Amino acid sequence: MRVHDLPTPALVIDAAALEANLATMAAARPGAGLRPHVKAHKCTALAAEQRRAGHHAFTCATPREMIGMVDAGLGEDLLLANEVLDLARLSALAARQEHARITVAVDSEATIDAAARAGIGEVLIDVMVGLRRCGCAPEDAGRLADRARSAGMDVRGVMGYEGHLMMVADPAEKQRRVDECVERLLSAHALVGGDVVSSGGTGTYQQHHRVTEVQAGSYLLMDTQYATLGLPFRHALRVWATVISASTEWAVCDAGLKTMGMDHGLPSLPGADVLFCSDEHTTLASRADSGADTARATLPAVGEKIGLLPAHVDPTMAMHERVHIVDDDDVIDTYSIDLRGW
Amino acid sequence: MRVHDLPTPALVIDAAALEANLATMAAARPGAGLRPHVKAHKCTALAAEQRRAGHHAFTCATPREMIGMVDAGLGEDLLLANEVLDLARLSALAARQEHARITVAVDSEATIDAAARAGIGEVLIDVMVGLRRCGCAPEDAGRLADRARSAGMDVRGVMGYEGHLMMVADPAEKQRRVDECVERLLSAHALVGGDVVSSGGTGTYQQHHRVTEVQAGSYLLMDTQYATLGLPFRHALRVWATVISASTEWAVCDAGLKTMGMDHGLPSLPGADVLFCSDEHTTLASRADSGADTARATLPAVGEKIGLLPAHVDPTMAMHERVHIVDDDDVIDTYSIDLRGW
Repeated sequence: MRVHDLPTPALVIDAAALEANLATMAAARPGAGLRPHVKAHKCTALAAEQRRAGHHAFTCATPREMIGMVDAGLGEDLLLANEVLDLARLSALAARQEHARITVAVDSEATIDAAARAGIGEVLIDVMVGLRRCGCAPEDAGRLADRARSAGMDVRGVMGYEGHLMMVADPAEKQRRVDECVERLLSAHALVGGDVVSSGGTGTYQQHHRVTEVQAGSYLLMDTQYATLGLPFRHALRVWATVISASTEWAVCDAGLKTMGMDHGLPSLPGADVLFCSDEHTTLASRADSGADTARATLPAVGEKIGLLPAHVDPTMAMHERVHIVDDDDVIDTYSIDLRGW
Repeated sequence: MRVHDLPTPALVIDAAALEANLATMAAARPGAGLRPHVKAHKCTALAAEQRRAGHHAFTCATPREMIGMVDAGLGEDLLLANEVLDLARLSALAARQEHARITVAVDSEATIDAAARAGIGEVLIDVMVGLRRCGCAPEDAGRLADRARSAGMDVRGVMGYEGHLMMVADPAEKQRRVDECVERLLSAHALVGGDVVSSGGTGTYQQHHRVTEVQAGSYLLMDTQYATLGLPFRHALRVWATVISASTEWAVCDAGLKTMGMDHGLPSLPGADVLFCSDEHTTLASRADSGADTARATLPAVGEKIGLLPAHVDPTMAMHERVHIVDDDDVIDTYSIDLRGW
């Protein structure tokens, strides 16, 4: 099939950009130095490509991602980097420990007790290193590790996530602030013990020198938010759309709010201005600086196909049932986005 | 099942609020005066409730919504209020005309030709009345209607959508500007003919006195965006979530960017400040004006359940596989959100 024949809206991944992103990250953080975060794509076929690039351990955000990874044969070393209290889901996960290595993040007595009751064998202590989200205070990590061990679980180490620093632009400031977070994490690790010190993401993977692994995910597909950082990754993901209507001043395509994550703003189209998105539409105008004679001189006509760049990859992927891998104009594969939901 | 036992995140609809919203709209625009827009909920079971409230005709935004409505036995009079060029999907729709009444919006020669080639029997001329999106110029509507009739299709009339006016707060200004849009639509109708003059939405249904039908959808479930307008509808939809982590200053629940449409901003929680959303989390603080002694004095504890109000219903519904109907603490039904995708 040719990419122009795809029903739209559709997600397409450029095979060459994907390959380049895999290689660039595998060179920077080979093998176990990266624990790719599958929340960024929710797709076991893409995780399998990361496995082929040398990364055998993965990070997940939901029990369904964990179970889907086990069932896809990618359960060599899975970390649920999130707090879960749901006994039924934790038990379903624990039941797969015969076939997979399952580690669950905990940050409170309640989450430790839930993991223990469900029969989870291994945990990491989740430490709050600066982002106002999950994680215990560093000084409380040792007490929680003791409680987990008393409940019969192995404690593999610590994790943190400096998500508030991903978009810091100045390299020196970013390094200084990441180092502060790592200090907090290492102070917790001194209380906890274990082999694992896990942290970071695509926005900070270059600043991490003292952790055992980085949890980056967005590097694989990239989005316009991370692109502002000048990272060595290419845009691999586009939302493929058809122009379905046009006036003398704008063009409208069939991809909108239900097709793209909007939390980081509008998608982009090279050469055009994106005016706004509706549920099933995006309205485009010629770039204000294009120098064109008429407002829509450089815009595509009705029936033409375009590839929008989403502002945020993760929620965008979660909105689609499948993603197509393309090599120039050829659709060479179609992957199910099979880890959606909870 | 009790609502507190639902796995989270989950969508829940308050049965009494749903019933009240159905009754309020059915009183204001009974029967054929409303053509409910199913894009707001993507759920045939909710459409069936609107049918029971007296509305037999429906508006859809995608071919999949149309086909799903036919297959659910709700195809008495379906309007695809969107431009589609995809011959395969239009043909699949046309194949259902034996069992359903199918009308498709067109606004260009290309969309008319696609509908004709697919064997679609009835169209509406979509007219641009002010929103920079789909629709032909009013003065071009007659020419397009002639072309559609020449291609063998019936032209049922016109539709427009003044989406840019939904959030105008001043009633007099809103009435004046809606009237301007209706004038444009009626000028097109004079050139087109037919029985149908279709327009409007939840934000403007009270301003429409000269159209034959209004395409409102959000009234059924409501969101915090529309709630700012003081409309007589109640919040029926909540995102049910579990508090999974808490610090001395904030609480974190397990619903985030993949759970709620973010195009109109953060969700709300009565009594709390929503600080930010991440992929799978929302971080909450005590309200700045709560007068509480400590930052999190009024926040829920780990393990407690909360109901977030989404800012925009439509994309929120599209992110979930199902929605639960609740009567106080009891889950009395679970509906599949079966019209997702394209």
